[in-house]
Amino acid sequence: MSTAAPRTAGPDHLWSVDEHLADILATVRPLEPIELNLLDAQGCVLVEDVTVPVSLPPFDNSSMDGYAVRVADVAGASEQYPAALEVVGDVAAGQADLLHVGPGQAARIMTGAPLPPGAETVVPVEWTDGGLGEGPADGMRARSLAPEGATGQVLVHRPAGPRAHVRAKGSDVRAGDRALEAGTVLGPPQISLLAAIGRGTVRVRPRPRVVVLSTGSELVQPDEELRSGQIYDSNSFALTAAARDAGAIAYRVGAVADDAATLRDTIEDQLVRADLVVTTGGVSVGAYDVVKEALSYTADEDEPGSGVEFRRIAMQPGKPQGFGSVGPDHTPLLALPGNPVSSYVSFELFVRPAIRTLMGLTDVHRPRVRARLTADRALTSPKGRRQFLRGRYADGTVTPVGGAGSHLVAALAQANALIVVPEDVESVAPGTETEVVLLG
Amino acid sequence: MSTAAPRTAGPDHLWSVDEHLADILATVRPLEPIELNLLDAQGCVLVEDVTVPVSLPPFDNSSMDGYAVRVADVAGASEQYPAALEVVGDVAAGQADLLHVGPGQAARIMTGAPLPPGAETVVPVEWTDGGLGEGPADGMRARSLAPEGATGQVLVHRPAGPRAHVRAKGSDVRAGDRALEAGTVLGPPQISLLAAIGRGTVRVRPRPRVVVLSTGSELVQPDEELRSGQIYDSNSFALTAAARDAGAIAYRVGAVADDAATLRDTIEDQLVRADLVVTTGGVSVGAYDVVKEALSYTADEDEPGSGVEFRRIAMQPGKPQGFGSVGPDHTPLLALPGNPVSSYVSFELFVRPAIRTLMGLTDVHRPRVRARLTADRALTSPKGRRQFLRGRYADGTVTPVGGAGSHLVAALAQANALIVVPEDVESVAPGTETEVVLLG
Repeated sequence: MSTAAPRTAGPDHLWSVDEHLADILATVRPLEPIELNLLDAQGCVLVEDVTVPVSLPPFDNSSMDGYAVRVADVAGASEQYPAALEVVGDVAAGQADLLHVGPGQAARIMTGAPLPPGAETVVPVEWTDGGLGEGPADGMRARSLAPEGATGQVLVHRPAGPRAHVRAKGSDVRAGDRALEAGTVLGPPQISLLAAIGRGTVRVRPRPRVVVLSTGSELVQPDEELRSGQIYDSNSFALTAAARDAGAIAYRVGAVADDAATLRDTIEDQLVRADLVVTTGGVSVGAYDVVKEALSYTADEDEPGSGVEFRRIAMQPGKPQGFGSVGPDHTPLLALPGNPVSSYVSFELFVRPAIRTLMGLTDVHRPRVRARLTADRALTSPKGRRQFLRGRYADGTVTPVGGAGSHLVAALAQANALIVVPEDVESVAPGTETEVVLLG
Repeated sequence: MSTAAPRTAGPDHLWSVDEHLADILATVRPLEPIELNLLDAQGCVLVEDVTVPVSLPPFDNSSMDGYAVRVADVAGASEQYPAALEVVGDVAAGQADLLHVGPGQAARIMTGAPLPPGAETVVPVEWTDGGLGEGPADGMRARSLAPEGATGQVLVHRPAGPRAHVRAKGSDVRAGDRALEAGTVLGPPQISLLAAIGRGTVRVRPRPRVVVLSTGSELVQPDEELRSGQIYDSNSFALTAAARDAGAIAYRVGAVADDAATLRDTIEDQLVRADLVVTTGGVSVGAYDVVKEALSYTADEDEPGSGVEFRRIAMQPGKPQGFGSVGPDHTPLLALPGNPVSSYVSFELFVRPAIRTLMGLTDVHRPRVRARLTADRALTSPKGRRQFLRGRYADGTVTPVGGAGSHLVAALAQANALIVVPEDVESVAPGTETEVVLLG
């Protein structure tokens, strides 16, 4: 694995949130498209304009269960003076060999079945006696009860104009029409349309594969015994879940001890299945900040464009961040701080947009709204840093949950929004309208 | 496989949309809970109140990289008159054997590391010379560069009050606190909290397994050759995608020909992996309506509570619907009409709420809003039927896409909302405020 020297502004630069995000979004590129089976492409972005190859419906067909007849044969028909027609057989959906309907004849026809030659219109079964000679019918007898199909005579009680209850060939889409444009996100209705026009595979940008690993010799797996000085690893679980939520295929590697060689080996091993690597912890100014130590190490200076830069961002929480790329394919890597709330906020602000950029989405950010602050007292925020407080948003108001401390993972679980306090604001009074990021 | 006679109102009853939905929601029960690994429980509903077993953080720890000292030793320290302390070693995160900090001493301490005995407060490294004797430091030397740890002397330039930069044991959550309540949906922040308190598994209602099959002898797989009278199967793709979107694990069986025995065998085979069966097609009044034929057949009348009832619903599209249960476990089954738009609208209105009820969610419906109709001319709607038109919603207005015809799958792919026209309304003028279902 190779990393290289920082690419940009130098270690003393204090980055704004917007500068850091802009650098990430300018660097991360959408993944190369691949051809996927339709259901594997759900949620993905189409990269081709899809043209309709064959008109839908591909043939004139009945929109009702009834009888295919000639218009003249049912003109003037009424319940008192029904038209009596000879039933020449059934036309079922999917039937290839069609009857011919001549003068004085009718074919029993099912919804979706092709209008047979000679027939000009369809009368619904409810407008007939269903061939039973017993007044208006409310349906047909199931084929299991009369497997030979329809024969005999049908009485038609109402007239029908030309092409009544007929869905015309091409009335939904026509061959040559644009079905979907490149850039469309494939949800169920789009998948429906693609299947309907016969597309079993489509060219899309795949879901990014995101490898999530946490670092820290103090970290223990949940359900294991907690010894003195240890805490449970929560970041690798939270960010794996969050990466999936953003649309990625996420792989949780789990906690790596604070040893630079181990961390480098682990990342190198994982690169084979990574479109993006996310680490937590080890990015600050301590002597055991192993992510910084491992990835700042310049092993291979002749790989231009590689390297992870560790930065201070003018924000709270989340001041220390790393961003860059690793390995021969310059796989992007985001190194987040280790505190659970800091890493989660950092994920929302930086990793989620990166994942959605990899997917080829144009709308990569969480929605933001203005909301009125409901609180007992003013929020305070350090000058020169953009603060993200956890809050609950509802109906145009937002209420902080927990305090400003970055370790309040319990409060985070109650939050559905981040309250944004700009860099130049040090106090926000109750009732003030503030910007809020909705966490969905 | 056994089915039985209809359970309710008889074949002549015209059901309202609300009656049909109420019957479904009164019948479908949330799935039995199971214990799942944390990441497998993402998106699921918790069925237990989770109590915090151990306080977080579990011990007093440092919130900064710096030096653990006694308050008296740094009182009055300044850049001009720094306090000189003997560095007795490192305290790293996860370290179990702790140094003792005596008078005149300091331990180099990392973020998250336990406050060592004897120390009363933490001074950040930026308030010291970092042990290098060269004025204020901006960080520590990586352990790789000084593997012996901190020794020698550190100069402290600022005083610190008791327990400064110390995160107190239990300041996030306390043992015995309620972490999460039964009924909580587990998103990334809740997974974060559960991992943080050491829960590797949780008791949740699992995702329902939904088997989707379409019926129709006219149906061909996408990418295959379309012969005379045939169309492509789109419903099984669309509804599989929609079921996943609703939170289910969906299995697409694909198209079954119009033969009752084949259909019954197929459903029976699939029951082993089904919490819910969804079929499309074959529910109307035609002679080849195989779903109706196969499932109305009463093979085993001594299994009370089984049976699928076929109904007419006062709606457009989607008038014919079937609902009931099949098999020895009374697996719920919804039989939707075969037209792609009808089946999709039916899914949104009836199947999605059923899936979300199986998941144990309380909020099972799509959000609804009021929107102003933007259209060239009035919308017309049949009296006595609730109409669902496809529309595009944006900023408080909704515009119809495509016409009222139920076969316009192309228009459906452009829609993001359903426009609801009530039963007693036959015309909706442009500018009218109408109810809209947001398709998300």
